[in-house]
Amino acid sequence: MAGSELTNIKSPRVKAVRRLTKRAFRDRDRSFLAEGPQAVREALALEGVVVELFATAEAEQRHADIVAAATAAGLAVHRASGEVMAELAQTVTPQGLLAVCRFVHVPLDGAVTAGARLVAVLAHVRDPGNAGTVLRTADAAGADAVVFTDASVDPYNGKCVRASAGSLFHLPVTTGVPVAQAVQRLKDAGLRVLAADGAGKQTLDDVDLSGPTAWIFGNEAWGLPEEILRLADEVVRVPIHGRAESLNLATAAAVCLYASARSQRAGSPAPAPRLP
Amino acid sequence: MAGSELTNIKSPRVKAVRRLTKRAFRDRDRSFLAEGPQAVREALALEGVVVELFATAEAEQRHADIVAAATAAGLAVHRASGEVMAELAQTVTPQGLLAVCRFVHVPLDGAVTAGARLVAVLAHVRDPGNAGTVLRTADAAGADAVVFTDASVDPYNGKCVRASAGSLFHLPVTTGVPVAQAVQRLKDAGLRVLAADGAGKQTLDDVDLSGPTAWIFGNEAWGLPEEILRLADEVVRVPIHGRAESLNLATAAAVCLYASARSQRAGSPAPAPRLP
Repeated sequence: MAGSELTNIKSPRVKAVRRLTKRAFRDRDRSFLAEGPQAVREALALEGVVVELFATAEAEQRHADIVAAATAAGLAVHRASGEVMAELAQTVTPQGLLAVCRFVHVPLDGAVTAGARLVAVLAHVRDPGNAGTVLRTADAAGADAVVFTDASVDPYNGKCVRASAGSLFHLPVTTGVPVAQAVQRLKDAGLRVLAADGAGKQTLDDVDLSGPTAWIFGNEAWGLPEEILRLADEVVRVPIHGRAESLNLATAAAVCLYASARSQRAGSPAPAPRLP
Repeated sequence: MAGSELTNIKSPRVKAVRRLTKRAFRDRDRSFLAEGPQAVREALALEGVVVELFATAEAEQRHADIVAAATAAGLAVHRASGEVMAELAQTVTPQGLLAVCRFVHVPLDGAVTAGARLVAVLAHVRDPGNAGTVLRTADAAGADAVVFTDASVDPYNGKCVRASAGSLFHLPVTTGVPVAQAVQRLKDAGLRVLAADGAGKQTLDDVDLSGPTAWIFGNEAWGLPEEILRLADEVVRVPIHGRAESLNLATAAAVCLYASARSQRAGSPAPAPRLP
């Protein structure tokens, strides 16, 4: 333990951490907050990501392995009172562990590399919970990368980090990229770019998804704007068999990403090498 | 417009409506609240469901068609001040329309009928937003019914109604049923009962989903208890191809329900009969 327990919610140290709940301060410090044992454990698994750890006395006991890992990595572990933790954490029932982490995103070219087979692009996704859920689903579906365009929510928003359930630390994420630049890079890397939108003439069941594919997901309320639909190779909709008007963004993304994962793995067997 | 504008948030009428945000009062009155133009429109499309409508002056103008439909149906439409609407509505930015509706669920036998091909069962789903999202997704996937067991959240919870985006009014919903009774009924109706759980030995890609299928979805945090897994014909998991530990409940349900919808519609031909 570094020093004594932090008990004053007005102390400069507590205030400095609390500031990271705001995007402007995150961008200035290139740091963000990860809350709870799952996120903190995943962050610690990446070298050089966690800057410092805050833990309540109770969490120190319950998650002794995590605290030990942080200490072994030479990190400062600060004990925080329940009141301080409640001030720092953004959840109603904070689990007593919170890490200050360095930004983990990579440049577009590092995220989307030749050989990528499945990429999710979040264009105009504004709800951080939805964005985090798509990130988690993309990870589960085996995606190679997730791209947050410059019109989407900040991936380091607390709600997004929580909804990603650790996936922010699992696969290459890039952020702040203009959508046209992202699409160009995806095409250059050999991926077919599909825009998921209710306006699509083709449904998910009509298109061959066995090849390398990038999916663009749009805004919760109004989908994707015309200029993005034009950038894509195809506009594809999830079929609506019943009377619902549409799907929630995160569930639509799950259906699309898993359809790709299944098709790619369905053992469309690699073409046999041609004999000369 | 029936009478003058309601402006007093402490009036008995306003208090009586406000009470419907609590389950005990909903159950007593067999009534619930539907907020916003989309839900109110869908509720009005069903005869005898809407009891009365509350609208702000602004909403009356913006949604004149809805108010006219309610009036034509002989319903009382009360004008409410912005303050009264804020008191009645559960959203931060209420859209100025709110209907008191009669319960719409049906008995188990009425929901799950012979010939049903796709049914979603919510067992131990506690988060109303997740439950509403699964209801919306089941509707979109063309499900014949949705069953809320007695251990799940109330489908008339305001968050569930909102997340369902009108789907609560689209397909037969039953609620308060013990899970064993639901499973028996599903089996009697000829459906194969699959429990969606990370503990499943088989993945979604391993099972034949072309026949009539019911999916049981469990709790957000801990999945399904052993006794429910034993009731099911099979326990099936969504494959995790990446490093995520699991999927969010609503996204997992979307992947399962759409996998069924696709298989049932793909007309996967029955296996050729074996010659003796």
